[in-house]
Amino acid sequence: MTATIGQSVDSLDTPVLIVDLDALDRNLGRMAAFAHEAGVALRPHAKAHKLPLIARKQLELGAVGITCSKLGEAEVLVAGGILGILISSEIVGPTKIARLIALARHARLTIVVDDAENAAAISAAAVDAGINIAALVEVDVGQRRCGVQPGQPAVDLAGVVARLPGLTFTGLQGYEGHLQHVYDRAERKALCDAAMEKLVATRAAVEASGLPVGIVTTAGTGTAEFAVLHEGVTEIQPGSYIWMDCNYARVAGTPYESALSVIATVVSRQRPNDVIVDAGWKALSTDGGMPVALDCPDLTYSPAGDEHGRLTVADGGTLPESGDRVAIVPSHCDTTVNLYDWLIGVRNGVVETIWPIPGRGKTT
Amino acid sequence: MTATIGQSVDSLDTPVLIVDLDALDRNLGRMAAFAHEAGVALRPHAKAHKLPLIARKQLELGAVGITCSKLGEAEVLVAGGILGILISSEIVGPTKIARLIALARHARLTIVVDDAENAAAISAAAVDAGINIAALVEVDVGQRRCGVQPGQPAVDLAGVVARLPGLTFTGLQGYEGHLQHVYDRAERKALCDAAMEKLVATRAAVEASGLPVGIVTTAGTGTAEFAVLHEGVTEIQPGSYIWMDCNYARVAGTPYESALSVIATVVSRQRPNDVIVDAGWKALSTDGGMPVALDCPDLTYSPAGDEHGRLTVADGGTLPESGDRVAIVPSHCDTTVNLYDWLIGVRNGVVETIWPIPGRGKTT
Repeated sequence: MTATIGQSVDSLDTPVLIVDLDALDRNLGRMAAFAHEAGVALRPHAKAHKLPLIARKQLELGAVGITCSKLGEAEVLVAGGILGILISSEIVGPTKIARLIALARHARLTIVVDDAENAAAISAAAVDAGINIAALVEVDVGQRRCGVQPGQPAVDLAGVVARLPGLTFTGLQGYEGHLQHVYDRAERKALCDAAMEKLVATRAAVEASGLPVGIVTTAGTGTAEFAVLHEGVTEIQPGSYIWMDCNYARVAGTPYESALSVIATVVSRQRPNDVIVDAGWKALSTDGGMPVALDCPDLTYSPAGDEHGRLTVADGGTLPESGDRVAIVPSHCDTTVNLYDWLIGVRNGVVETIWPIPGRGKTT
Repeated sequence: MTATIGQSVDSLDTPVLIVDLDALDRNLGRMAAFAHEAGVALRPHAKAHKLPLIARKQLELGAVGITCSKLGEAEVLVAGGILGILISSEIVGPTKIARLIALARHARLTIVVDDAENAAAISAAAVDAGINIAALVEVDVGQRRCGVQPGQPAVDLAGVVARLPGLTFTGLQGYEGHLQHVYDRAERKALCDAAMEKLVATRAAVEASGLPVGIVTTAGTGTAEFAVLHEGVTEIQPGSYIWMDCNYARVAGTPYESALSVIATVVSRQRPNDVIVDAGWKALSTDGGMPVALDCPDLTYSPAGDEHGRLTVADGGTLPESGDRVAIVPSHCDTTVNLYDWLIGVRNGVVETIWPIPGRGKTT
């Protein structure tokens, strides 16, 4: 990384991952204010940024804790001084459980379970270590990924968890990840409402079985505004609102700004209707669709290999010259941030921060 | 990374990137023998492995040098003691050119150019530094990415480069990257032959203009066997042959073995026809299509988010249990290796090497 604090953004070597710090600040503030006004807890998902410092900013704005997907991300956050963490994916197998128990000595962890045998294994390890871990039962509210079915299966597993020593049953997680990118707002609301009805009905059923449910955690950037309207939902765990990639920008009604981009340079211009830039699959993930050239509606990005991308110009549009720089908005913030070691924070066109990304690549 | 030398592969934490060292050794040897027998130089492409040690193995087996895509990769290779490097992408802009000149003091670099202004800028910087850099003219043999058109445009640029101080015109590069995954062998051969005819005709035209052409470099794993049959092609630069991802495995006639896999663990089993594993977009790239479960023809992999994948079982097939481990063959070796900090080498089921991947993420 050859960036220097105070350097003009226009002179940064490329490809480079840039954050607009003003937009980041506004996004952080908007979501914090939204959760406060809605009367729900905010537990932002660190998968979007992978950076303890941004987690700290979220906590200082009122978040009750931080969510992450994997134990490896939690290890990085704890090492960065972030101690209250929900790990939103199941932790399975003896190696993972040993890491969980070790980490729990240094942090306040909450885990999710969707299987009685797995819960029993974690319970036994916690008892051996003389510790206690908070556990949520994960409920499948329609994503068809992890989680038991709503209703009786969740009630049954909650009962198992509540009886296991070394675990404290604290509530439910139900994530409607499959609805985050339903672009139409009315359609997204209707689908989210149906998912939330399953979740709060499950809450009621668990409580009717005699178990108190302290936490019902759910929602992402696309569904937070609908999830909070359901009584019984206690908290939301959005992540992407801080960056708003170009796929989330299509999700109607989300009031967050584009804050993340990759600056690329034109390295070859050989044809009348396209140029080649120095950002390909290794610089811009494409699992969320195609990245978009910022403020260049005439240009269409497509990958042209590991290290190259193609910008094709529409009829009548202007093609950049060799050596020109183009800002490109990622289509999926999580997986694009995961490609970089450094995140360069810019304000007023000048480099203000050079942040390493310690959670990058933490998949285990 | 929690791996230990001597550990059983079955006890490694997941997801983990594994190389079968025996298969790697055989692949390295096969390509070296092929190039030797064909009478062409081998300059393997490091984009597949990003590891100076594997580059060293390739050199010890007779490679004349190493190819890489970006200056950042070359910097890593040089720091790892690999000194003869072809950078196969154009190097554009003052920051990049300054890095190139600095690196050239420590290594024997060859660059490619497709633009007279860019060549002049590099020439001026080389003269300022009192050094000389070998330069190839890149020719577009049909990929429509970088490179001037075959024939007169290449002759013209070769003349410009030959006259520039600080640069030595040494030959041509023409990469038929668009043909590597034409699965049918006869079709691939026909298309490669047409591309090579453009390249060797350009060689003849440049020589007719009075310039000697020392190097004509081309070909990848899918086309090497056809490219070497064209008189005038002096060297090949394949990379993926060392790993053979599942997309390359479909390319008929390539005699290399699958050597790379990601081991994943089943973390949730909630439905009769699928399970969820701990390897998603962050563990397996999908720009080359879908990864494939190794030796499990009944299982189909699909991503289920940043951190999760889905294995769907065919009717009558057997679904793995929660906690079971599944080896998954990446669909694109370059971009999957780029997701990992460590490559674990296994022989006879035991960890023999734990290699950091210093070229990971080097996109600049």
